[in-house]
Amino acid sequence: MKVLIANLGSTSFKYRLFDMDDERQLARGGVERIGAEQSSAFVEIDGTRRDLTIVAPDHAVAVEQCLAQLTDAEQGCLASADEVTAIGFKAVHGGRVGGVRRVDNDVLVAMEDVATVAPAHNPPYIAAMRQMNEALPHIPLVAAFETGFHETIPPRLKHYAVPTEWADQYGIKRYGFHGASHRYVAGRVAELTGNHELRVISCHLGGSSSVCAIRHGESVATSMGMSPQSGLPQNNRVGDFDPFALPTLMERTDTTLPAALELLANQCGLQGLSGTSGDVRDLATAAEAGDQRAQLAIDVYTTSVRHYIGAYLVELGGADVLAFAGGIGENGHDIRRAVCQNLSELGIVLDEAKNAEARSEGSIHAEGSRTQIWIVPTNEELIVARQVRDLLGQV
Amino acid sequence: MKVLIANLGSTSFKYRLFDMDDERQLARGGVERIGAEQSSAFVEIDGTRRDLTIVAPDHAVAVEQCLAQLTDAEQGCLASADEVTAIGFKAVHGGRVGGVRRVDNDVLVAMEDVATVAPAHNPPYIAAMRQMNEALPHIPLVAAFETGFHETIPPRLKHYAVPTEWADQYGIKRYGFHGASHRYVAGRVAELTGNHELRVISCHLGGSSSVCAIRHGESVATSMGMSPQSGLPQNNRVGDFDPFALPTLMERTDTTLPAALELLANQCGLQGLSGTSGDVRDLATAAEAGDQRAQLAIDVYTTSVRHYIGAYLVELGGADVLAFAGGIGENGHDIRRAVCQNLSELGIVLDEAKNAEARSEGSIHAEGSRTQIWIVPTNEELIVARQVRDLLGQV
Repeated sequence: MKVLIANLGSTSFKYRLFDMDDERQLARGGVERIGAEQSSAFVEIDGTRRDLTIVAPDHAVAVEQCLAQLTDAEQGCLASADEVTAIGFKAVHGGRVGGVRRVDNDVLVAMEDVATVAPAHNPPYIAAMRQMNEALPHIPLVAAFETGFHETIPPRLKHYAVPTEWADQYGIKRYGFHGASHRYVAGRVAELTGNHELRVISCHLGGSSSVCAIRHGESVATSMGMSPQSGLPQNNRVGDFDPFALPTLMERTDTTLPAALELLANQCGLQGLSGTSGDVRDLATAAEAGDQRAQLAIDVYTTSVRHYIGAYLVELGGADVLAFAGGIGENGHDIRRAVCQNLSELGIVLDEAKNAEARSEGSIHAEGSRTQIWIVPTNEELIVARQVRDLLGQV
Repeated sequence: MKVLIANLGSTSFKYRLFDMDDERQLARGGVERIGAEQSSAFVEIDGTRRDLTIVAPDHAVAVEQCLAQLTDAEQGCLASADEVTAIGFKAVHGGRVGGVRRVDNDVLVAMEDVATVAPAHNPPYIAAMRQMNEALPHIPLVAAFETGFHETIPPRLKHYAVPTEWADQYGIKRYGFHGASHRYVAGRVAELTGNHELRVISCHLGGSSSVCAIRHGESVATSMGMSPQSGLPQNNRVGDFDPFALPTLMERTDTTLPAALELLANQCGLQGLSGTSGDVRDLATAAEAGDQRAQLAIDVYTTSVRHYIGAYLVELGGADVLAFAGGIGENGHDIRRAVCQNLSELGIVLDEAKNAEARSEGSIHAEGSRTQIWIVPTNEELIVARQVRDLLGQV
C-alpha cells in the first residue's frame, strides 16, 4: 500500500510518499507559491532531486502536478497514480471529531466549527481538502488529527475549571496537539530502551512546541489546551495567557476581541517578545551580540519548557525518560542544556559533552542520571502514514 | 503604635486591632450586612465577645461604630480613637502601584484602572476607601498590595510571551497575589527551621488559592498571573484558561466578552465544575456520597496544585520545605494527602499518621523525606500590620 502524506501551508504543499508494506520512503517533493503565476516545485526520488517551474493555481492542481512527476515514464517511481491508495494529512483541530477519519463533509464542517480556535492551521487545510476532494474524487483523503494521541488524558486534566456542560456541549476542554510527534517519540523510546512501561516526558520543541507526559505509551497530560496557541510560547503565538488581560489589551490598543486574538496568534511568542525574530537560532545570535530582549525571549521559552517538565515529573511521580524532538529539540544543544540545568536533585543529569556533540538519535544523560535523556528525531509523516494504513486496512 | 487591619467585603467589614509595640492582638470585630436597615456587629476584647445590632448605611459609618465600641468607657480597650495610628488594608491589585502605600487619590485611580482585572476585589475596596478617607480624614489609610511580595519575580517569569511594550506600557504581565500569606509563610518557615536560605514551595489553599516558589525568603514564581482569576481553580473563579476558548463560549452562550469574563469570574472554579458548591468540604461530603462531579472538582483542584508544585520544584532545583497554609491547607488533610501522593522519587514523603492528626502548626513529613512538609497557619493581618508600622515609621 502506497500512501502520500501531505503537509499544507496556505500557499505551499509538501509531501512524502511511503510504501507501507515496508514503511520505506519512496519520494518526497513539494510546491511553493501556489496561486502565483508560476510556482516552483521539486521532486526527490532515490536521492535524485529535480526542480521544476509549474503552473498551480490551487492546491488540487499542485497535487495533480506532483502525481504527474511521480508517474513520469523516465524519472518517476510509480507506474500510475492509481497506486496511491490515499493522501494522508496531519490535521490540527477537528473539535468534536478526533482520531483518524476519511475526510468527508462532516469532518470538514467539524474543522470549520473550530476555525476560530486554530486560526493559523484549520482554514488552509479546509480549503485545500475541499479542492482535492472535488478534483481527485478517486483518491481517498484521510485526516489524522493532532489531538488523537491525547484522547487518553484523564478527565481531571481534560477539564478546565468550568461547568462540565461547557466541555460536553461546547467542546471547551483541553485537546492537546503535536499528537503525531509525541506518539512517535513514545513508540521510539520504548524501542530504544526495550521497555514499553515507561514514564516519558516528551519535549517537541520547534517552530511550534509542546511538552507531553506519557505513561506506558499513552498521553496523560500535555501543555497545549483548547487551542494550539496555549502552553509554551511559539514562534509567533502567545502560549499561556490570562484572558482577564484582554479588556486592558483591547482598551489600550483600541481594538476588538477578534483583532486582539489575532495579535496573540500572530505577533506574540518569541517574535513578539524579542521584537526581531521567532527563530531561536536568530535569537541566540542576537543575544550573544548583547540584545537583551532576544535573551529574554530565550529565557521565557526555556523557563516555560522547565515549568511543564516539572509539572509532568509530579504528574508521573518521576520520569524514566526525558526526550527531545523537533527542530530545536534535535539541534538546539544550548536550549537542551538550559532546560536540564540544576535538576540533579530531581534525578535528571545531562552529560554536557554528549549533549554538545550530539547530531542524531542517541542518549545524552550522564552516568548515574536516574532519568535517561534522549534525542529522538521525530517522524510525524511515518506516524500519519501508519494511521492511514491502519484505517484503510480496517475498512 | 496601634494599627487596625481591615478586611472588606462588598457588604461587610472585619478587623483586627494590633499593638505593634509587641505585635499583640488587642481586639477583633466586624459588621455584616452593611447598607441594610439593621446591621449585626461584634467586638471581641480579651476573649470576651459582645454582639450588637447597629445602623451602618455604609462602610465609613461601620468603621466609626467599631471605633466607638473599642473606645467604650466600660468595655473598650482604647481611651480614644486617636490611639489608632492607621487603618491598614490587604489590597488586591494596584496595577502600576505596588508595595505599601498611603491611600490617596493616585492609589485609588490606579486601583480603578485595573478594576476589570480584579472585578471581585477592587470595586468594593475602592468604594469603602473613598468613604473612609472622607469621613475619617484624621486616620491615615494604608494599602499593602497583595502583589508586593512578588516584585522579586525575575523578568523571565514576569513576562508573558507578548511584546515587552505591553508589559511596560499597558501593565500586561504577571503580578501574583496572596503576597501577605506567602510572605508570612516564608518568614515563619525560616523561624521554625532556623534557616533563612531555604527553597520553599508555599501552598496557600483556601476559598482562593495560589502556590508560590520562594528562594531565601523572596518570591521567584507564583501561580496567579495578571489577574487573581488565573492559576489554580478558585471557589467560583476559573483559574488558568485558554483565551482562544472565548469566541466559542460567547457564540454558544450568546453573550458578550464582559459577560463571558463575568461567567469565568463568578460561575466557574470548583462551583462551576461541581455544579453544587465551591467549598471543598461540601465537595468531599458529596463525593463520598457518590457525586462524580464533586469528585471531579476535587481532582481538578489537587491536580492543579500538584502541577504548580512540580513546576516550582524544577524552578528551585528541588525544595527544602513544602508548606501548607490557608483554610484548606491548614485543615484539609485529605487534600494534603492527595497533593503529596506518589512523590517519593522526587524527595517528598508525607507521614500519613501525622498528616491525619495535625491540628495546628507543625511538620508532617516522614522521616527520610528530603523535603520537609509543614503546616503553617497563616497570619496575613499581622504581616499587613507590620507593613503599616514600617511605612509610617519611615515617614
